[in-house]
Amino acid sequence: MAVADEVKALTFDVFGTVVNWRESIAAEAKALLGAKGGDHDWNAFALSWRSKYQPAMEKVRSGERPWIKLDDLHRENLEEVLTEFGITNLSDAEKDNLNRAWHRLEPWPDTVGGLARLKRKYILATLSNGNIALMVNMAKHSKLPWDTILGAEVARAYKPQPEAYQRTCEALGLKPAQVMLVAAHNGDLVAAKKTGMRTAFVRRATEYGLNETRDQKAEHDFDYVAESFIDLAEQLGCRL
Amino acid sequence: MAVADEVKALTFDVFGTVVNWRESIAAEAKALLGAKGGDHDWNAFALSWRSKYQPAMEKVRSGERPWIKLDDLHRENLEEVLTEFGITNLSDAEKDNLNRAWHRLEPWPDTVGGLARLKRKYILATLSNGNIALMVNMAKHSKLPWDTILGAEVARAYKPQPEAYQRTCEALGLKPAQVMLVAAHNGDLVAAKKTGMRTAFVRRATEYGLNETRDQKAEHDFDYVAESFIDLAEQLGCRL
Repeated sequence: MAVADEVKALTFDVFGTVVNWRESIAAEAKALLGAKGGDHDWNAFALSWRSKYQPAMEKVRSGERPWIKLDDLHRENLEEVLTEFGITNLSDAEKDNLNRAWHRLEPWPDTVGGLARLKRKYILATLSNGNIALMVNMAKHSKLPWDTILGAEVARAYKPQPEAYQRTCEALGLKPAQVMLVAAHNGDLVAAKKTGMRTAFVRRATEYGLNETRDQKAEHDFDYVAESFIDLAEQLGCRL
Repeated sequence: MAVADEVKALTFDVFGTVVNWRESIAAEAKALLGAKGGDHDWNAFALSWRSKYQPAMEKVRSGERPWIKLDDLHRENLEEVLTEFGITNLSDAEKDNLNRAWHRLEPWPDTVGGLARLKRKYILATLSNGNIALMVNMAKHSKLPWDTILGAEVARAYKPQPEAYQRTCEALGLKPAQVMLVAAHNGDLVAAKKTGMRTAFVRRATEYGLNETRDQKAEHDFDYVAESFIDLAEQLGCRL
């Protein structure tokens, strides 16, 4: 059977693959902090915040600290970024609001149209390290038509731990070979592939900016390689 | 603030409230077993299968057995029903297929139209004892536009245990007063109300058949009482 027909569910990495977190966070930081007199490199602000993401999750993955959802890690990391940028005039409520900028990330231009096509043929689920509330609120904000939210909080494991992928397939009642991970990151796809899942690389060349060198192309033998969600839908035979 | 505005998410009981399990199961049993020469009261077959639902979950709730998802309880219960009806000519694959009739339940006539209206204003999530795969497949089959699947499998607790309701609110990042349970069963709503959730009773008078006497009306002080999902949408100010 062709891979496109054997697969029943598409699961998605979200930050960077589905939404443009860097420009969304930079824009919210500028709007919220600029209004309070802040004048900073907002792109650098977004990159700094994101740079603390993997180290924070690593403490959970390694067992150094117990399970904690991404909203709470983002909030802790925000304190560090504000200190780095010398921003001291935010109330707790303003910090909480800025932290929820991660719930309001904007999709790439092809995201919503591509997902609509893919949804005609496949179950669409998130397989993100973002927590359920973050993913649900983002979906409402950006009109992302998920069939359900899965991933780290449901699996109680952060990617790239194998349990994050395995428990997502189990929750869907499917074998790993019937579930494909769609992601813009080689490392995520390699980890999924090791559990037996199918893989689709979608290129998001400017996720980290114009001078980015990481993840500019598929570096492994994935089942599909696409330039956009529309391209992926075409390759999988999904028309509206 | 009016309850309709304070509430951010509607969570739904599914079996009986969203879908007509009795007639769906009877029709599938007739089609699958009738084709193999069976001739039984298929309505009684559906009612018998369903009658084993609460006792099976009670063993999990009481701690007599560890967590097990509803698909597996349904499959165990099916063996008992087949024995009761003296049906001995099914292969394991045929039994598995019949068990998945619970993934293909049909909605009540007002369900899909009502949910479409409600989705314009609220997050819509399942809060069912059905497992994730069952709920996802049913949603694809019957075009139920959930924002996410929550409930027993995510909470690792079967209703009416308070954890089933509490963990669902927590997953949504909302206070119980911001989450409403929509259900056709007084007992379910009373349990939700005890955790601080809002409640909406929707009357499904023929869930168990024309001679049913249970849950014919709201027996407690719920926030809303409606005759259908369309009626509920009207009361909550949700227009298309």
